[in-house]
Amino acid sequence: MSKDQKVKILLEEKEIPRKWYNIHADMPFKLDPSYSPQTMGLATPQELLKIFPEEILKQEMSQERFIEIPEEVWERYKKFRSTPLYRAYDLEKALDTPAKIYYKYEGQNATGSHKLNTALAQVYYNKQSGIKRIATETGAGQWGSALSVACAEFGLDCTVYMVKVSYNQKPYRRSFMRLFGAEIFASPSTHTEVGRKILEKDPDCTGSLGIAISEAVEDAATHDDTNYALGSVLNHVCLHQTIIGLEAKLQMEKLGEYPDIVIACCGGGSNFAGIAFPFLMDKLDGSKKDLRAIAVEPTACPTLTRGVYAYDYADTGHAAPITKMYTLGADFVPAPDHAGGLRYHGDSPLVSLLYNKGVIEAQAYGQKDVFEAAVMFAKAEGIVPAPESAHAVKGAIEEALRAKEEGKEKTILFCLSGHGYFDMYAYDEYFKGSMQNTVLSDEQIKESLMKLPKVE
Amino acid sequence: MSKDQKVKILLEEKEIPRKWYNIHADMPFKLDPSYSPQTMGLATPQELLKIFPEEILKQEMSQERFIEIPEEVWERYKKFRSTPLYRAYDLEKALDTPAKIYYKYEGQNATGSHKLNTALAQVYYNKQSGIKRIATETGAGQWGSALSVACAEFGLDCTVYMVKVSYNQKPYRRSFMRLFGAEIFASPSTHTEVGRKILEKDPDCTGSLGIAISEAVEDAATHDDTNYALGSVLNHVCLHQTIIGLEAKLQMEKLGEYPDIVIACCGGGSNFAGIAFPFLMDKLDGSKKDLRAIAVEPTACPTLTRGVYAYDYADTGHAAPITKMYTLGADFVPAPDHAGGLRYHGDSPLVSLLYNKGVIEAQAYGQKDVFEAAVMFAKAEGIVPAPESAHAVKGAIEEALRAKEEGKEKTILFCLSGHGYFDMYAYDEYFKGSMQNTVLSDEQIKESLMKLPKVE
Repeated sequence: MSKDQKVKILLEEKEIPRKWYNIHADMPFKLDPSYSPQTMGLATPQELLKIFPEEILKQEMSQERFIEIPEEVWERYKKFRSTPLYRAYDLEKALDTPAKIYYKYEGQNATGSHKLNTALAQVYYNKQSGIKRIATETGAGQWGSALSVACAEFGLDCTVYMVKVSYNQKPYRRSFMRLFGAEIFASPSTHTEVGRKILEKDPDCTGSLGIAISEAVEDAATHDDTNYALGSVLNHVCLHQTIIGLEAKLQMEKLGEYPDIVIACCGGGSNFAGIAFPFLMDKLDGSKKDLRAIAVEPTACPTLTRGVYAYDYADTGHAAPITKMYTLGADFVPAPDHAGGLRYHGDSPLVSLLYNKGVIEAQAYGQKDVFEAAVMFAKAEGIVPAPESAHAVKGAIEEALRAKEEGKEKTILFCLSGHGYFDMYAYDEYFKGSMQNTVLSDEQIKESLMKLPKVE
Repeated sequence: MSKDQKVKILLEEKEIPRKWYNIHADMPFKLDPSYSPQTMGLATPQELLKIFPEEILKQEMSQERFIEIPEEVWERYKKFRSTPLYRAYDLEKALDTPAKIYYKYEGQNATGSHKLNTALAQVYYNKQSGIKRIATETGAGQWGSALSVACAEFGLDCTVYMVKVSYNQKPYRRSFMRLFGAEIFASPSTHTEVGRKILEKDPDCTGSLGIAISEAVEDAATHDDTNYALGSVLNHVCLHQTIIGLEAKLQMEKLGEYPDIVIACCGGGSNFAGIAFPFLMDKLDGSKKDLRAIAVEPTACPTLTRGVYAYDYADTGHAAPITKMYTLGADFVPAPDHAGGLRYHGDSPLVSLLYNKGVIEAQAYGQKDVFEAAVMFAKAEGIVPAPESAHAVKGAIEEALRAKEEGKEKTILFCLSGHGYFDMYAYDEYFKGSMQNTVLSDEQIKESLMKLPKVE
């Protein structure tokens, strides 16, 4: 690194985007409608209004290209945004690659990940519509942490159903949420009908994201003052995350750069959507036809790379709408892998559709390879990636090495969606040397795909 | 907060200071010399060169007002600097105070605290002088983390003697340092003569910072390719931290503001020095006579508020120079309090002298009161303070409440030196409701002061 090399690009406050980008408006193909798991007919707004505020539903269906960020949300954004765009000079050097690697780092806010972008927006709209409490689920804890902080900021109560295995494994995530005033239940809990039923059958059940979603949705649907909030998957969540990519575009513009490849980890898809959609805008309009966008997922939960594109339940208890997406089946239980939050059986309908139409690509990597990449990145760049974000790091390293092989000066941009301070035990596992890449058999996947609902 | 209120001030890259500020040059009174614990005569440069590089020794003694930051260090600084200066609008509102509260946040770099400012500088100078490995101690873990990252950046080996009680209590700090390639020993260890002696007498000894320092100094003194690095106390460490206050001054200038009161937590004193010294420059030259600077310490280790100003040993094993400072006695063992790193028996000679001459003030608070303040701050501002930094938060809240009582619009600036992600267990203790403020009896303090060395 020399003194003339710009390692970190920030925007001025007045440059922070005032609108989110809605990719659905630009897509030549449109999303299929959702179905009600109760009636098996088309999902009605009335059903959804039991758990979401009207403004969120509007965004979920919107065909507007740009949607204004409410002043009160933007005012909260400016506490931690813009987030830095870094040029990874030291990683490039370690890889001896001709590729230029940039990363957008979303881990510097108090909750440690990009999730706060949508948490603030969702809590704001709920407050506007008179809601007093929000119920949600959390797996690895990033989403529950973000929603707790957002609720504390806007003065709403927060109830988090935390997957029991994670509740026990990650006590500090729990403490963090409690510090911000959230009420936390290990899921399955006795607090909901669906939780009690599951515990009756299997008192030792360690939970899953699908179960925790069912509990949170039931809690919201059965309490008038309470709504539900989801941290990924849905269109409005992807929408709110586009602030990441919109900023990154401006930041790269300042450098006279445009990426050849955009990379992000992909669980429910919101982080991938956040960085990639604003760039895909240019691919959809034909001005950047060769742009590649790669969603990286764990081999332990390979939704895009090995799932099917079909209608499926969003949760174990069949409380949330049935949507068309890439899925491994709602009963799919990922191996106890250190992939962090990337363990949802389905994927964002928007991301799924773009993948299905060949607009984007997907890659899956095993946890051992992913942590190896994370350690290399940490030593070079001085930031410890969250296990989720480490998948994007692995993806970027692979592409940088390919550029080296091909002797091409590619420009790579990836999203470092969060830090790994709460995930050091996973790094310990890696350093013990016993971590293995998870490989699923075709039979495992086939079996969990046998119970797809029939709605078409 | 309204849209016109600036909550976060950053500097442009070209505004990041290029020089550190050396307050000793401006002090009308000078530091007393150090003594050798071996000879009990004046400490000689020859002795110190066994463990420090020449450039560091020069800085330790320097009377220059400003010292240039080497290009290679500045290039590393710009990865995480400038650090944000925040206006705490939400905390002000929660306190209903007429005071304006600003805080400088040093927790956004990978190591989570201000310690990286000096770690990078020290490792750089050691590398320049041909050193291959650095040995150090760490208590709560902030310093060990920072030095590990700095050594990884410059390609030096790093050995950390970590106080055993902390080694066991904070496994994630250990993992963090290991990730960056550091070698870590629980101190007292069998790796050094002093460690072995202590373990012989007391095999269950849980260690102390004083013991860990002795081990690291011995390691450095007995290996030619190895030097020692200290994370606080010494003049050059205070010097490197002044980047904090120099930036803060520029940032406040942009707002047309100047603080009435500057506040920081104070253990060894480097964080306090970092934020306060550049402002004290204006008090020493008479242009800001009324400026108050307050060092906040825990009642469990009340060095300034209840110690004596005297020559004392810097470490348990009497390996490091004897210096004049406020001290509780080198054998003082603080109660198992959640004050984080603020557990050193002594204090920075520069901070001590300024306190002795009445230039600065000091306050001590109990851990329960400190955590209460931290929780209030976290909920208002959305950042979880490190236990150390929470002392500054408490100090700032007290002054803001006093301003309210007096109906005065004071401008308060404090340093939020780090985040508390690795310290959630301490917050858990607080929420359990059993945390008590530590109060030391006069007898406890008197006893530990009985073994001061006689050198004058």
